Parts: sequence; structure tokens; C-alpha cells
Amino acid sequence: MTEMASSNVAKPEDTAELRQLYADFDAEHLKPLWTQIDDLMPAVPNPKAVPHIWKWSRLFPLAERSGELVPVGRGGERRAIGLANPGLGGRAYVSPTLWAAIQYLGPHETAPEHRHAQNAFRFVVEGEGVWTVVNGDPVRMSRGDLLLTPGWHFHGHHNDTDASMAWIDGLDIPFSYQNDVGFFEFGSDRVTDYATPQFSRGERLWAYPGLRPLSQLNDTVSTPLGAYRWEFTDRALEEQLLLEDEGQPATVEQGHAAIRYVNPTTGGDVMPTIRAEFHRMRPGVVSPARREVGSSVFQVFEGSGVVALNGAETKLEKGDLFVVPSWVPWSLQAETQLDVFRFSDAPIMERLNFARTQIDERRR
Amino acid sequence: MTEMASSNVAKPEDTAELRQLYADFDAEHLKPLWTQIDDLMPAVPNPKAVPHIWKWSRLFPLAERSGELVPVGRGGERRAIGLANPGLGGRAYVSPTLWAAIQYLGPHETAPEHRHAQNAFRFVVEGEGVWTVVNGDPVRMSRGDLLLTPGWHFHGHHNDTDASMAWIDGLDIPFSYQNDVGFFEFGSDRVTDYATPQFSRGERLWAYPGLRPLSQLNDTVSTPLGAYRWEFTDRALEEQLLLEDEGQPATVEQGHAAIRYVNPTTGGDVMPTIRAEFHRMRPGVVSPARREVGSSVFQVFEGSGVVALNGAETKLEKGDLFVVPSWVPWSLQAETQLDVFRFSDAPIMERLNFARTQIDERRR
Amino acid sequence: MTEMASSNVAKPEDTAELRQLYADFDAEHLKPLWTQIDDLMPAVPNPKAVPHIWKWSRLFPLAERSGELVPVGRGGERRAIGLANPGLGGRAYVSPTLWAAIQYLGPHETAPEHRHAQNAFRFVVEGEGVWTVVNGDPVRMSRGDLLLTPGWHFHGHHNDTDASMAWIDGLDIPFSYQNDVGFFEFGSDRVTDYATPQFSRGERLWAYPGLRPLSQLNDTVSTPLGAYRWEFTDRALEEQLLLEDEGQPATVEQGHAAIRYVNPTTGGDVMPTIRAEFHRMRPGVVSPARREVGSSVFQVFEGSGVVALNGAETKLEKGDLFVVPSWVPWSLQAETQLDVFRFSDAPIMERLNFARTQIDERRR
Amino acid sequence: MTEMASSNVAKPEDTAELRQLYADFDAEHLKPLWTQIDDLMPAVPNPKAVPHIWKWSRLFPLAERSGELVPVGRGGERRAIGLANPGLGGRAYVSPTLWAAIQYLGPHETAPEHRHAQNAFRFVVEGEGVWTVVNGDPVRMSRGDLLLTPGWHFHGHHNDTDASMAWIDGLDIPFSYQNDVGFFEFGSDRVTDYATPQFSRGERLWAYPGLRPLSQLNDTVSTPLGAYRWEFTDRALEEQLLLEDEGQPATVEQGHAAIRYVNPTTGGDVMPTIRAEFHRMRPGVVSPARREVGSSVFQVFEGSGVVALNGAETKLEKGDLFVVPSWVPWSLQAETQLDVFRFSDAPIMERLNFARTQIDERRR
Repeated sequence: MTEMASSNVAKPEDTAELRQLYADFDAEHLKPLWTQIDDLMPAVPNPKAVPHIWKWSRLFPLAERSGELVPVGRGGERRAIGLANPGLGGRAYVSPTLWAAIQYLGPHETAPEHRHAQNAFRFVVEGEGVWTVVNGDPVRMSRGDLLLTPGWHFHGHHNDTDASMAWIDGLDIPFSYQNDVGFFEFGSDRVTDYATPQFSRGERLWAYPGLRPLSQLNDTVSTPLGAYRWEFTDRALEEQLLLEDEGQPATVEQGHAAIRYVNPTTGGDVMPTIRAEFHRMRPGVVSPARREVGSSVFQVFEGSGVVALNGAETKLEKGDLFVVPSWVPWSLQAETQLDVFRFSDAPIMERLNFARTQIDERRR
Repeated sequence: MTEMASSNVAKPEDTAELRQLYADFDAEHLKPLWTQIDDLMPAVPNPKAVPHIWKWSRLFPLAERSGELVPVGRGGERRAIGLANPGLGGRAYVSPTLWAAIQYLGPHETAPEHRHAQNAFRFVVEGEGVWTVVNGDPVRMSRGDLLLTPGWHFHGHHNDTDASMAWIDGLDIPFSYQNDVGFFEFGSDRVTDYATPQFSRGERLWAYPGLRPLSQLNDTVSTPLGAYRWEFTDRALEEQLLLEDEGQPATVEQGHAAIRYVNPTTGGDVMPTIRAEFHRMRPGVVSPARREVGSSVFQVFEGSGVVALNGAETKLEKGDLFVVPSWVPWSLQAETQLDVFRFSDAPIMERLNFARTQIDERRR
Repeated sequence: MTEMASSNVAKPEDTAELRQLYADFDAEHLKPLWTQIDDLMPAVPNPKAVPHIWKWSRLFPLAERSGELVPVGRGGERRAIGLANPGLGGRAYVSPTLWAAIQYLGPHETAPEHRHAQNAFRFVVEGEGVWTVVNGDPVRMSRGDLLLTPGWHFHGHHNDTDASMAWIDGLDIPFSYQNDVGFFEFGSDRVTDYATPQFSRGERLWAYPGLRPLSQLNDTVSTPLGAYRWEFTDRALEEQLLLEDEGQPATVEQGHAAIRYVNPTTGGDVMPTIRAEFHRMRPGVVSPARREVGSSVFQVFEGSGVVALNGAETKLEKGDLFVVPSWVPWSLQAETQLDVFRFSDAPIMERLNFARTQIDERRR
Repeated sequence: MTEMASSNVAKPEDTAELRQLYADFDAEHLKPLWTQIDDLMPAVPNPKAVPHIWKWSRLFPLAERSGELVPVGRGGERRAIGLANPGLGGRAYVSPTLWAAIQYLGPHETAPEHRHAQNAFRFVVEGEGVWTVVNGDPVRMSRGDLLLTPGWHFHGHHNDTDASMAWIDGLDIPFSYQNDVGFFEFGSDRVTDYATPQFSRGERLWAYPGLRPLSQLNDTVSTPLGAYRWEFTDRALEEQLLLEDEGQPATVEQGHAAIRYVNPTTGGDVMPTIRAEFHRMRPGVVSPARREVGSSVFQVFEGSGVVALNGAETKLEKGDLFVVPSWVPWSLQAETQLDVFRFSDAPIMERLNFARTQIDERRR
């Protein structure tokens, strides 16, 4: 990549006439490119968002305190606490495109139903006992599960137990806000179905490998499968590592198993703006430093390790979350077996042809 | 549909000059359209293939006798006995596009490895103990399973037990033969791996609902999943009927559950020329008479019923096979719960835009 | 490619019991694979169709004689004389998939309207003065034009002049017949519009490079452009050769310009079963011998040359037609500048994943 | 659409503990959803961008003055003056996704070559004499032409005449900046080819209706056609209106012809983030008020009329530009025949499934 040259640059002479021209530009709501191009069109992505790590050990107690002080219900809608990237000026944007939050629901509480154009999911790092009701279909939430609420699906949550529960939410709120694509509508103040089935109707229709209901032959924009269960994720990763032991191609790199959650009607991403993946690394494995266009959020599900972000290393433990802004090099190192959930805006980048990846051959 | 007019037709006068013209056509390898159009371009499909039913009770003993008299090995390749549509002149074509056969493998026999451009599957109506080895991956064959060997995949079979086993094969041999697209290559005279694992490597990588290995992001023409297990098919159908009982949309019509086997990388058909489905009808259910462009083969997996083909009814029992040629009206009636496997050339018809369906509103 | 082994083959012993088994197979409409596999599943495609050349100098006079002896009208529908491949038993099949015919229309004659599921086109090697009316849209037919009548479009032709005209028709009649996909319906006994506009309505809407009517945003299975005019084809080929002279990548090989006719809504083939192309080779250019799965028909539009089919060379002149069956090696040599129209069943082969090409590095 | 309820809202009590909780959130880079949701997730898009009109009569003299005071060359790169939406805080963003600018090049000046991930086009409302050199291919720029420089194509411009020339640029700079997807690289300080051909090499290869070079069968992300000439656009629109006069379906609504510029390899938009269209309205025609998700910029090419934006009407004349932010109702009224160029971020909205349109049945 050629560096931006700073010398021999054609610059206008600073004269009274030039200043008058600039003033006249302002009056007409005009801005010249030549004074802004270095910022607007950098040689490589130069994100305002910064890499950052949020420790679960600090997040969770704050969520608990919210549970005591903040009611959940119509208006506030959700007891969700958003991760605010320190580079993005105080908004609850974990990156320019993504929202990540810890959501907390006390015993027998209900978060009322609503729907919005924004795409959403939940991932459960611990706990159980909450059902999310998506377009009327109650979906159990348990440790390790990924639960989907794609754009314009009504959804609410209720806690069926005497214990509180927390999980993370991921959405495309910043992208939607920035590009003015959001719609929002209230639904029932309660959830429409308080049943607590083991499996949602979507799973009962769709959760069979390679089988498609003959009544459901039209492809859907987002996945029709509301829940991706830990049991399957865990087994898929375990088998990849066993196949690797048998000398078979299965893992993405030595000691590193990974799956992508996909829409069974197309084999593509679960939602048009958000990709979700789960990674398992054997103890001692270090992934090569990698830069990608677009931003990602990771949460440690189990185990411990180290993340290097722009070369700076931080220790990771269960529940910790970190964000990797666009083109920031990152690398993971597993100390124990390390299980990590990841979500990103990669579908946006790929569908609009902005995706690029650069891998550093030297490890880290 | 307008009927072909038979009167007021422009016909040439039968003269010596006309006869000479026709003789000169012949000499130049020419044929006029005007003498052939009624046959070549009928108002609706007018298949030479006829509807026909093969009784399992007669097929199976013949397969057993073959087991005694006919060796299996290189050259003959398979102890497969093809269903020869009575309208197609003695070739083992069940329809103009499809091949269907009963294949039989005695105790500890091996059918040697080969590969061909033709797409193939096996479906097991009863028995177990054979493994088919597809591109080196041993795949267990058990009752109710669908096993895939897409075009140009090496495959052989071996029987690991002291009992014989039979199953059905489906291929696109007639289509391939007619259109000169076939390639064939011998592989190992034995199978390359005599291991007998419970699950194939393909299943261990792919048989999780909505999970895609990150190492396998390129879509494949045919399914990468070599086995579709009965356990999942059975449960998917059962759940559709339960959902129907709960008032949910799930079945294709009242009392009629059905799944299509699909390629998890795309959500589409398992192979480019062959569609496979499984249907379960509750006792007493009658499907409306239906005409479709393209041909289908059905096998009763369990239960009993009646099929009406062109209005003629025949009793069906476990293992019975029947073929429905293009545009022949067919209807199924379940006496007991009726489980039926179906395969067809529908992907050909759909990809080439020839698909049409007509449903008779009056039942049968 | 491994040759089929002829020795060490597992064969059943010819016994009375075996003969009884085969007789019992016959009685049950069964045929064993092991006696047919060499024919049914050859090592490489082994077409019954043979390479053949039809000389325009012999075809055209026969078409003229038909014009005197055979009326055109309802019933016979078209004064079309089909090319009958000598290997295909007397039917007017130029290949297992394709129909090619010379069609002849006398002064002021009308070929009545009809429609059929079969896809059709016309290509004009000489003459003018006929309009084909496609779904009510009159389309002028002139030398060098490709005119489309995709499946289920009504179409008829009328000659607006005092001179007769001939052209070639290409259809997928053999494929449709073989696979029982044909539907046919009579329309008006006359054409519905005797107007003779220079450009059809389809061209007026669609014949602009890279411009799509905002009223026509749904992609169509077949091209919405009824006519591909010689003026554009000629210019496109000429420019490719000029670009080549300027050292730019433009031609398919040195001295060989070529275009494919495409559906502007998708960039893909003009119809789901038929590909159409036009090739221009500079004097002296020889294309490498090439084998392809699927069959093609070529017509010399202008110039002279030699075609090698399976190594046998034949001289080509204006109007001559030849067929290349599947996997037969072919090569063209231009004596003068050689302009050739080509159509094939390649979309069938590609959509069903049977396409393969093998190029002989040694020229011819 | 349900309005956001403002009463009966669950709100936390303002206590010292709550304030401490919020302070602790801040310390941990967290922000609660419940205090931000009304802004972040509005009932319908609530853009900060405002509708605005820039008069060509004021823009052009400012561009001329820039020509005198500001050099064009390496560093500043382009003498482009961006339209700064009054609602977007002074940046040269015409909308959250789009950049629009007037660019000005004096006699015999050269704007140096560079490339960037951002997608760009130029549209010429008047003048001629400049060539833009795209990946080495000189492309003439003349009145009414649309010229494309898709992402990561090198491009520079040079004026071959003694007169200056101005045109508009459209890019996805704001989108790229916001989402950190931009890459930028300098090329030659001069353009690499000062030839001034009438037609670019891309046009010579691609600008034929429905013809695709056989050497170019791989689909491209962006159009391979660098220039869409006014001659074709004008004729396409004229023919739509003539067809409408003949009672044929051709226009988008009575008296309103329109085309979309498309990629001939796919029939889809010319670039992954930007749609371009041209509209022609007969005198007196009024389009219904329409809201769309996403933003658009229009430029009057010829004629006069009135635009209503959020109900406020403004007179339009040749060269005037206006922006319609997301979900702002807009309507055009033609006084004379009105020719309007339009570009938008619709491909982003459609590919990410955020597109929605609402048409007000009452006109305006």
C-alpha cells in the first residue's frame, strides 16, 4: 500500500480571495474535497473505534445492580446495558455497525414484545430459565445457545424461574441508526405465550440436518431456525478436532475448530447484516495475526487465553468480551481449551464487496 | 388446452413429385416437420413410459436367487436388477430419465469401487450391515437411511455381516445415456476402507442443524452429507404431525407430512438431477390427483395403502415400487399410516424451466 | 481415463438356472445391470449420433421444391425440413437434444400462430421480408439476425414480399420429446399483427447497452429481446479484432473473435436449453481440436474453410451446416475470413453439472 | 405504524444509587439502552440529514472561481466541491451514505490517477472535452453520459480542450468512512494514456445489446462498461413514451419513462453500493408522493419543474441538485418535459434487506 505523500502536494495559496471562496462555499452548504481527502479517504481503514475489552467480572455485577434499581417494561423495553466503544464518543456503539449489550432479567420478569427492522440475536454464556417468544413461538434460552430474532419479528422475553438470568444481545443498531433504516413497533405488553417448551416450533420444523419441510420451500432472508443449541455446536467442534486427529481435513487451522451458524434455506448467514460463529482452540494454539475489513465482537464462552489487539496483549477469562474494529490486527492464544463466540458485520462487507482479509504469516 | 385439430388441415397432395421430394429428403438425411409434428409436439406430454408397479414380494426373491447365481465383482460391478418400464422397450429404464434397481449383497461380499458422471443414491427399505465407501469415507447403510453418491465420487460397498442385504439404487442413467454425458472410471477392486464406523466423516462434519464448518465455505454442486439418517427423517415427520395437531402450519396438506432431502450448503436438491423426498400420511388421508411434468418413483417404506395411476387403483404394501411418468395423474390413499420414499427428476425440469403441476380439485 | 477392463471380469456361469432367472426377470419387467453396463455406462460419451455435414447448395433447392408442392398452414404448421442425424434412426433429430431445420416461406404466405413448451429460434443466413410475430410483437427477419421464440410464446410468420425466403430453425424438440415435457397449443390461423415495423417492441424497450426499463425489473427465464441484429453482431466482432490488433485482450484466441447472445436481465443464455454464439475467424486461423459434453450445430454465415470432425476434414461454404455430437473432437480452419453461427445444448449441460471440455494442445 | 407511547412507561426512580450505577456504567464504557432507545430506535427513520436543494446557477460560478484559485494535482487530487447536507454537521456528506460534488477541470489540466475502495461515477450535465482514464482505458465524457469508476479501479482525468468543463461526481464516501472500509492508493501523477478516442475499449467490447464477448464470461461485481452514452439513454426514453402512445406497457406510470443503468454481466446495479437511473416526465406529469428507505440525489438534466420534499415545493431548473433523505416523502412535477438523473444507495438497502417503499395514493 502506497503511503499518502505529504510533499509536492498541489495546494492553493492562502489568499483573501481563497478565504472568500471558502466562506462562499459555507454559505452554499459546500465543502471542498481537497481540504478533507486525507481524513475522508485514508490509505487503509482508520477507525475511530478502538479495540477494547470488557471484563465479565465487572459487567455482571453492574447488571445485577440494574436488576435492583431499574424496572423492565414498556418504554425502556429492555434491561440491556450496551458496550460503548471508547472511541465512539459515548454512544452505546461497540463498533460503527454493531451493538453489544448484557441483558438481565430478574425472577419472573417479562420484557414486553416489540419488533424492529434491526436484526438481533442473543447468546447465553451462563444460566437458563428464560424463554424468548419470537413471532409467538416460545424459545428456551440455555447456556451455549444462540437465539435469533431477525428484523421485524415480534419478540419478548420472560423469566420462568426464581433466579435471575443474564445473556448478551447483538444487533445492528449503529448501522441502522447511521443509515436511517430503522422501524419500530410495540407489541403486547406481556409475551403472547408463556409456555415453556423444551424446543420451539421453529426447531421442531427445521432442526434436522439436511431435511427441509415440504411446506417451507421458499427461501427466507433470515434463518427460520430460532435456536442453535449448544449440544450441536459442542459436538460439531469436538468432531472436527477428532477428525483432525485422524488426519482428515476438518479444522480451519491446526488445533482450531470452528463453525458458522447458517440459514438452512440457503446455507448463508443467519441474518443479512450479522454473522455468528463459534471457535474452539486447543491449549497452546495461537492464531496468526489477521486484519479484516469490518468489525467483530468476541465473547469467551469457556477457558482462558490471551488476545493480542494491535499487538497489545490482554488476558481473557470466561465471559469477557472484546471488539476488533476494522483492519486492526488480532490474534488469539489459547491457554486452556478456549471456546469463543464471535459475531461480526461480515455479511455487510461481503454483500457490498468491501471485504478484505490480510493474514500475517508470522504468528502474532 | 386446445385439442389438436384434425380437419381443415393443410396437407400436400400425394403426387409422384411429392414422393420424389420425400425420397430426395431421405437421401440428404432430412425429414419434414409436417408429417411428424403430431407425434413430436403433442398437446400435452404423451409418454411412452407407462405407470407400473413392482411388488417387493416378487422382487426380493429374485434378488436372492441372483445372489446365488451371479457373482459380484469387477466388470459387472454391481448385483443390481433394474426396473424396466414396460413402455420403454426392454431397457432397464424406469422412466426416460431415471434408473431404479434392487441391489443385493451377500455376506462379506464387496462391490468394487468405481466412479461415473451419473448421480446415484441408495435407499434402504430393510436390513443393515453394509457400508458404502464414498470417496474413501465409509458410510453405514441402515433401514430408512438415504445414502448419496453424487456424480464422479468413487464408491464401492461391502457387507460386514453374515447376512445378505438388499436396497434400492436410484440414478440418472437413462438421462445420461440419452444425452451422451456419461463418464466412467474403475477404482479399487476392493473398497479402500473396510472400517465400519457408526457415522461417516461427512456426517461428523455436516450433520448438525444450521451449523457449517468454517473450513467448508464453498458451496458444493451436490450435498456433502453422505447419509440422511432415518432417526431424523422419522422425527421431522412426527413433529410436523404434532404441530398440525397444535394448529400450526407444518404439513403440506391435512394429515400429510413431508420433507425434502437437501444440500446443506445451498438448501437445494441433493444432486443436480435427482430430488428425494419422504412422505407420511395418516390413515385415511387421500392426496388429490396430481399431474407433474417429469417422472417419479415411489417406494412404500411402511404401512399399506392404494395408489391411483391414471385412475387405476392398486394396493400397496411395504417395499412396493411404482413409477409415475410425466403428466400421468396420481393419487395416494393411506390405509394405515403410510410412509413413502419418493425420488424424481424434478431438478432437471425446474432448472430447465419445464416444470408444471396440475392438481385436480376433486380428490382422485 | 481408465479403459474398461475386458478380462478377469466376474461373470455368472451360463446355466439352466441362470436362464430361468433371466426369464423370470423378463416376466417381472426387470433387467440386470451386469449385462448392460458396458453399453449404458461407457468410459466416455459414446454417442449414437454421428458428425455430419449438410450442404446448403443441396438443402436450399429441396426447400424450394417443397415450396411448390407443400402448402403451409394449420396442421402441418410449418414448411420446415429437419436435419436427421444419420445415427439417430431416421427421426429429424440433429442430435439427441436439438432440432435444426430449414424453413421456407413463399411470397405472401403465412405460417399460423401456435405456442409450445419447446424453445425455438431462427437464424437468417440470407434474405429478408418475413416478419415473425411473437406474442403479438412483429419482428423483422433479415440476414444475420437471430430471432427468439422462447417456450410458450405464441408465434407465427408471414412473408410480406413477392419473393420467397428461407432460414434455419433451432429447437429443443428431441430433448422435449425424450423427456416428455412438451405442451402445444394452437393460436390464430393468421398472424395477429401484419404490421412490418423496422424494429419490434421488444427491441424498442430493450436494445440499448446496459439500460433496463424501470418498468421491467423482474428477471425473465428467457430473453425479453426478440431480435439480435446483425449490425451489432458484426460490429462487436470487428471491434474485438481491432482491439486485438491494438494489443488488448478481446478475442478468445489469436484471430478468433466471438460473442454469446445473452438475456439482458441476467447476462445468461437466451433460453434455458439453447446457447447461441457467433464466431469470426481470420483467414488462416485454426482452432485447436476440442471435445465438449453436449452437442452443437454450426452454420457458415460467410466465407469458406474446413472443419475437422473426429479427424476427418470437410470443406465448408456459405450456408453449410454441421453437427458435432457429444465428445467428438472438432476443429475449424478459416480459409477466407470465416463467419460462423453456432447453437448448442450447453445450458442443459451446465445447469445439470455435466459440462466438461477437453482441448487438444496440438492443433487438430 | 404504532406511535411510541410516552406514558405508562417503566422508568427507574432517580436516586443516588441510580446515579452511582450510571457513573459506574460510564467508568466501564457502558450505556444503558433504556435511556437511549427513543432516539436509537425510532418508530420510522428519523434522519439527521435534511432535504436540500443546490442551485446550479450558484454552484457553477463557485466551481469556476475554484478553477482560478485552486490548483489540481497530487495531494488534493481533485477540484471537487462536495454538497454538504445542512443536517450533517458540516462534512461534505450529501446523505449518510452518499457524496455528491461538482468537479471542475480547466483547459488542458490533468487530475492525477489514483484508486480507492470507494465506488464512483461521473454524470455530465453540460460540456465535453474531458477524458477519464479508467484502468488505462480513456473514456470520453460528454453531455448526458454516465461514466463509471467502480471501487479499486485506477482513474484520472484530463481536459483535452481550451475550455473548462464541469460535471458531478457521486461516491459512497460517507458510507465507506463511517464503516471503515476505505483503501486508497496513488497512481500515476499524469494519466497513463492521453489518447482521445470516441469510444473507450470497454464500450467497444461491451456496448452491444445482448451480446457478450466470449472472452468475458465471468460476471463482474461492477459493470465492465465504463460509459453509458446519452444517445442510448435518450432513445430508450423516447421509445418508452412512443410505446405508451401505442398503448403498450413501457413506462413506469403514465407520461413517465425511466431506465436503470445496469451491469450487462448480471442485469443488476452498476456498482454494489450505488444505483443510477434516468427519468423523463412529460409536461404536467406529477409523480405520487413516495417514501423510501435510503437516500437519493437528483439532478435536473433538462427542463423545469417543481419538487415537493416533505410537502415543501421548490422550483427546479437545469443543473439543480437535491437530496431526499430516508423516508422523506418526495414528488416531482414536470412543467416542461423534465429530464432528471438520479442516484441512490438503494443497492445497500436491498442487499441488506432494509428496503421499503410507501406510496401516497393521493398525489402529493
